[in-house]
This record gives sequence, structure tokens and C-alpha cells, in this order.
Amino acid sequence: MIPFTGNPLDRASERRVDAAWLAAKRRTRNARVLPLWRLEAFLAGPEGTPNPKLCLIDGELADRLGENAIEIFLGLDGVAAIFARDISALQEPLEGALGTLGHFRDARSAAQLVNGTEAAIIGQARALIDWHQRHQFCAQCGARTDVMDAGYRRLCPQCRAEHFPRTDPAVIMLIVKGDTCLLGRNRRFGPGYYSALAGFLEPGETIEEAVRRETFEEAGVRVGAVRYIASQHWPFPSSLMIGCFAEAEARETKPDGVEILETRWFDKETIRAILGGAHVEGVHLPQPIAIAHHLLRAWVKE
Amino acid sequence: MIPFTGNPLDRASERRVDAAWLAAKRRTRNARVLPLWRLEAFLAGPEGTPNPKLCLIDGELADRLGENAIEIFLGLDGVAAIFARDISALQEPLEGALGTLGHFRDARSAAQLVNGTEAAIIGQARALIDWHQRHQFCAQCGARTDVMDAGYRRLCPQCRAEHFPRTDPAVIMLIVKGDTCLLGRNRRFGPGYYSALAGFLEPGETIEEAVRRETFEEAGVRVGAVRYIASQHWPFPSSLMIGCFAEAEARETKPDGVEILETRWFDKETIRAILGGAHVEGVHLPQPIAIAHHLLRAWVKE
Repeated sequence: MIPFTGNPLDRASERRVDAAWLAAKRRTRNARVLPLWRLEAFLAGPEGTPNPKLCLIDGELADRLGENAIEIFLGLDGVAAIFARDISALQEPLEGALGTLGHFRDARSAAQLVNGTEAAIIGQARALIDWHQRHQFCAQCGARTDVMDAGYRRLCPQCRAEHFPRTDPAVIMLIVKGDTCLLGRNRRFGPGYYSALAGFLEPGETIEEAVRRETFEEAGVRVGAVRYIASQHWPFPSSLMIGCFAEAEARETKPDGVEILETRWFDKETIRAILGGAHVEGVHLPQPIAIAHHLLRAWVKE
Repeated sequence: MIPFTGNPLDRASERRVDAAWLAAKRRTRNARVLPLWRLEAFLAGPEGTPNPKLCLIDGELADRLGENAIEIFLGLDGVAAIFARDISALQEPLEGALGTLGHFRDARSAAQLVNGTEAAIIGQARALIDWHQRHQFCAQCGARTDVMDAGYRRLCPQCRAEHFPRTDPAVIMLIVKGDTCLLGRNRRFGPGYYSALAGFLEPGETIEEAVRRETFEEAGVRVGAVRYIASQHWPFPSSLMIGCFAEAEARETKPDGVEILETRWFDKETIRAILGGAHVEGVHLPQPIAIAHHLLRAWVKE
């Protein structure tokens, strides 16, 4: 299971426009709310609890946390409606009832601690709440907009423009040639840390075109066949990572020196050994939270 | 070739941040500019010209069209830099020099008239200019933002937030079972018009999850295996259409009655015949401009 995938909730998206249904669902005793504080997720128990669960609280408690807090309908868990609530306005969120129930943890760490399907709920909640925090004004006219449809739309009262949460498609590609694959060291990585090349798809591009452009720009490598392998939502802030294999036409590389400081070909045996736990001096591969890790796993299995 | 794909320009995205390079390129005699007027593309010759070409004009003429018009760097055609310019502020764009050169045509029609690779340039230009028209203000603070990086970024002078052109991933899926496929009639289509089911991917979803959710919501059908086939940029306003085949678990359907008024299973022979030009009473399939058409073509070939 790739982290941030496998969300178990039924989004019931057709019900979002039904304010009466939502309000009734929110008032029932089985409704549950995930608090997010400054984009950190609420986990059960004290800090350091092993294998913590998401801490969903009941609606009445949630009502008391933060005035005018934005709430998002995440979906149904059976008949219970699950919401996320942005309580960032609180200065000390753990003073009071919450402090006895759990603790806040940044979404990336939290996603690595909880089980896989709970990570997907964190991702959904973080992406949507972050979008609201940074999109309170109308991009078309500058007026303050209103939250609609349980958090899946904002409406401008002045010019009537509608705004929807954004998810930016990005391509991430394992460049392969024979039994070797090409990884790059991003300028944000320390020495020895390698991952798959990646970049945002631009308006006007297909997935394959974006893979070709980014690979040539970052590594100077022309690629032929591109094959889609898997995708992942990446909630930092909200990307759709589209994972591919791409065949290099030649082995020569020319890292751009801006995004990618260094590229390196690895043979399959080395990658397999490292994924299996072997230590190879000076080589660190992406962690399981990243789809790049899973692209490597898929490749060594072929 | 799927329309809006195969863009022949080199985006040279690393040069966009280099204002001096861009200005010099724009001033050279071989620079060319595609005017867009209220999102319509400029085609060579009078209206009705068969197989028209895009009409790219020289930089000096472009300079005289519209004060403070936004210009986007589309990319390099060899050494020549190609730009798109939004001249929507003009009331009568064909008065003067432009009127002797060509005419304006909405992007959808224009894309069907020009050759395939020119359609991709229209798509890129339309998506970016439309984004600027509707995103002149900062979504974070409401201030008016500035165009940066040749049109690929806007920067807020007040809160320093950066904004990037958006492209919304959408899934479009041919639901198949044995030798039949499921098409739906959208409420926006007339009677007899069928196409593949489709919908926007939401924050927190993978491609496969979005396919499963949308198919169940719109048609009441559960799907198993999902297979990526091809993608397309759709510049109305700016979507990445992610085309898939998806295996239905059963043949029973339940159209939602909101988006999809009717669903219908078609056998492969019927689809092949219609794509080959046969007339089948009361059945109209998607036109070649849409990726749905190409999904059907790929399916009948299998």
C-alpha cells in the first residue's frame, strides 16, 4: 500500500450540496471530527504513543474549538459522517479537553505513524484545509469568498466566481535502461540521497510529454517509451504524483545543476539489496512514504 | 494524434526566469506572437479558409495591439521565440493590420481546423491566458498580483504569495465488460449522444480511486482493474484528461440522473462500425477532438 492511498471513506460527493443533510449528519451522535491545528493532525494518546490512531472527536466537543472554524466533510464511515475542522485560530489547542485525548503531529510524520488508510484521511484533510487557508479571496476580483458544499467549493459573493480545491498533477519517473535505472540528487537533498526525477505537469502537456520535458531539462536525457505505473496523492500542499517508468535513449546525462545536482545509474541488484535492508556506503534511497520508493520496488520485481 | 497533444515548441522553461534573455528574444526579428482575443485564436486568411494555419505575427505589430496586454512565452521554434498575447481589451481587433492577415476563431473550432501540432499551441495559449484573466488577484490576501516568469507565475506584492497556472486532473474512463463497453449520456448532451464517463479527481485520490468513485457515483457500477491508456490536455479551461479502461464487475447500472441521464452498453462491432463511418440510428459517438473518441478507437483495436 502506497501511503496516502486507500482512503476508506465514502466521499458521498453528491450529498455535499445538501446543507440540510449535512447539518443533520453533523448533529448525530456518531458524527466524528478530526481536528487539524496549523495543518497538524490529531493523534490519539500522548506524544510517543506507538502506532497511534487518528483521534476523531465528537461533534459537541468540536463545536467548542475555534469560532468560525472551517469544517470539511471528509466522507462517510458506514453511516457516520466524518469531518475535518481547522482549529488553527487556537493559541494553545491542548489546553482543555483535547489535551487529555491526544496530541498534534505534522501530517508527514503522522502519516508514517498511523496505519495506511488513516494516512489517506490525513492527506485529504490537510490538502483541503491548506487550500482554504490560502484561498480565502477571489482570484478574479479580490473579494473575500464563502465556503460552500462542505468545503469543496468557494463562491465569490461579489463577482459570483466559483473556486474549487486544486490538485496539481506532477510526473515522477524512474528512467530505465536495460537493467539500470537513473536517480538524481535534488539540491534540497543531502549528499548520498537519490530519488526519481519529478516535476509539475504544465498547461498544454500530456503525462508523457511532461515526463520527456522534465527528464531532458533536469538530466539531459531523451526518453522513448513512457509507461504509467501508479499514482499517489501528495498533500504538501496537494499534488497528484503520476508515477511512470521511462526508457532512456542513451546513458549520457547532463544534470541541470539547478534542481538536480548529480545523476547516477544504479543496477537492479544494488537497488534490490538496499530495499532489502543492505547498507551501501553513500547511497540513500527514498523512504516508503514516497511513491519513488514504490516505483523502485515495482522495478526490481520486474 | 490526439488533438491538443504533440506541441512542437521547446518550452525552455529554465529561461523563463531570465527577463533579459526573454526581452532580447522578443525583440529579435524572428520572434512571433499569437494574438488571442477573448480566448479566440488568430488563424491566417479570411474566415472560411480551408485548412487554415495559425497566424503568428511579428513582434512590432504585436506591440501596437492593446496596452499592458499580457504576453506569455510559449516556447522556442528552433531559435525563434513564440509568444501568445491577450488583446481582449481591443473592441474591434480586426480593424487595422490584423484584419488583412486573418480572423479569430474560438479555440475549440480552431483546434479542429488547424493541423494537430498547431492545436496544441492553441491549447497551451488559451489555458494560460484564461488563467491570467481569472487570477489577477491574490487568493491569499486579495491584492492585485504581478505577472512573473513570462506568464508562468504570479506574485503578490503585498503578502508575497506565489501563484502558478492550474491544470486540473480529470479521469475519463471507458468501462468495459467482455466485448462491450459502457457509455453515458450527460445531461448536457442531446438525445443519442454518448460518451465515456468522466469527472475531476479530488484532493486525496489516486487516479484509480477517482475512476472507481466517479463510475460508481455516475453509473452505479463497481469497477475492478483500471488501466491507463492515454492523456490529453483539455484547455476548457485547463484539465489534464487521464484516459483509462476500467473493468466493470457487473452489467447492472444506475445512472445518477443528475450528471448522467442514461447509460448504455455497446458491443465492439457496433462501435467499430460507427467509428468506420456507419450510421446507427440514435447513436452519436464523441468527435475526434475528444480523448473519449481515441479511447474507443484503442478499445476496438484490442
